[in-house]
Amino acid sequence: MIHAYSLVHDDMPCMDDDVLRRGKPPCHKQYDEATALLVGDALQTLAFQLLAEHRLNGHARFPHPNLPPQAREGANESLREFHVNDDAARQLEMVRLLALASGSRGMAGGQAIDLSSVGQSLTLPELEFMHIHKTGALIRAAVLLGAQCGSASAAQLDRLDHFGKLIGLAFQVVDDVLDCEADTATLGKTAGKDADNDKPTYVSLLGIQGARDMAQRLHREALETLDGFGEPAQRLRELADFIVLRKF
Amino acid sequence: MIHAYSLVHDDMPCMDDDVLRRGKPPCHKQYDEATALLVGDALQTLAFQLLAEHRLNGHARFPHPNLPPQAREGANESLREFHVNDDAARQLEMVRLLALASGSRGMAGGQAIDLSSVGQSLTLPELEFMHIHKTGALIRAAVLLGAQCGSASAAQLDRLDHFGKLIGLAFQVVDDVLDCEADTATLGKTAGKDADNDKPTYVSLLGIQGARDMAQRLHREALETLDGFGEPAQRLRELADFIVLRKF
Repeated sequence: MIHAYSLVHDDMPCMDDDVLRRGKPPCHKQYDEATALLVGDALQTLAFQLLAEHRLNGHARFPHPNLPPQAREGANESLREFHVNDDAARQLEMVRLLALASGSRGMAGGQAIDLSSVGQSLTLPELEFMHIHKTGALIRAAVLLGAQCGSASAAQLDRLDHFGKLIGLAFQVVDDVLDCEADTATLGKTAGKDADNDKPTYVSLLGIQGARDMAQRLHREALETLDGFGEPAQRLRELADFIVLRKF
Repeated sequence: MIHAYSLVHDDMPCMDDDVLRRGKPPCHKQYDEATALLVGDALQTLAFQLLAEHRLNGHARFPHPNLPPQAREGANESLREFHVNDDAARQLEMVRLLALASGSRGMAGGQAIDLSSVGQSLTLPELEFMHIHKTGALIRAAVLLGAQCGSASAAQLDRLDHFGKLIGLAFQVVDDVLDCEADTATLGKTAGKDADNDKPTYVSLLGIQGARDMAQRLHREALETLDGFGEPAQRLRELADFIVLRKF
């Protein structure tokens, strides 16, 4: 939902002014700009609503926090009640992670840097800084939110976070390569748009082969980061493969 | 923050296209439309981040949810740990309330109804339905979020919710009266804009005196709803007074 809202707003005339998304007209073309603005706003809200409403592990709603103190102390003696509240602490942590990743120090901040970098010549570290925020933060959060539902140790969470950072960067490098290589029909969005808009890309900084090499290196490092996780991390490996090998 | 984000987006050209807010140029005039879009997006995120980060009752951060099971069972025996997790359940409930009030079934949905009602003739119940969503939901949520930090009973929460609904409606009725009566300098926003835009208002439906009477009636009912709350509700009474007696 956070990703979808960002695309709806990103395509609007005051941002990237795009007319094609997933092979179809974007929200502001299919409907109008005011609708696109409100749809994006409401999608963001819905993401946080879902995290706050959904009960982990199939638990029913936690007891109302405004129970009288006796009832709350009684609940304290019940392991089940504790687990319900333990889930609340996890869910709250997920709200926090998602907010950090998508707000001014994450995705929205990265978008702002992106807008202000049009026509600028960025160095590779500056380009990386932008993408770590703009697209990387949300991919990292997606990995960490999944991990919050399991029982990863602090050390494992650190490695999963590093994995998320690597595939987040790989995603952007591959995106820049595809933007040069693929045609509009395959991409489902306007090809060559970033170069036309004089936006700095990995291809403009490294050349097409340099960018391809960088994507392969990030892919390899990401898979190495998952060493020791065994079978449970198989879907994350497939995700890393998909991000680097995709054609659209 | 939710309120501020809604104003920033609402003033944009594709929505109300306003050039004055609190006596100053709105965000999209002071900066540009892309900045206003991102500022609104990031402000919404920051609201949920704050609710997830702030510790109620001055507690430190709750123990990391990914502690090994032994550590978690140990925590279960500690009343302090339980209270920390109890706070997490409350905070999660606050995230849920705020999301419900500001999303597609609250404020953002009300905005959509508002946009589609320009030039339409609404009945009084239709106008009320729109405002209960557009401005009322967030005012109700503000009252309920405050109540979540205290120890109100379920019956008391119901009355506080009703109070919030009444002052939310009163706010809008007074807004329509002021939009007709006051000048732009006093309001700090463009006066007479709703009437010019052929938007249905309480004044257009009830006349200026009918709208004033309605505001007085809602004010009285709101104060009656607080009967029995005594001194702790004094700030809510002052809020009801301010909403109805304000001149801007």
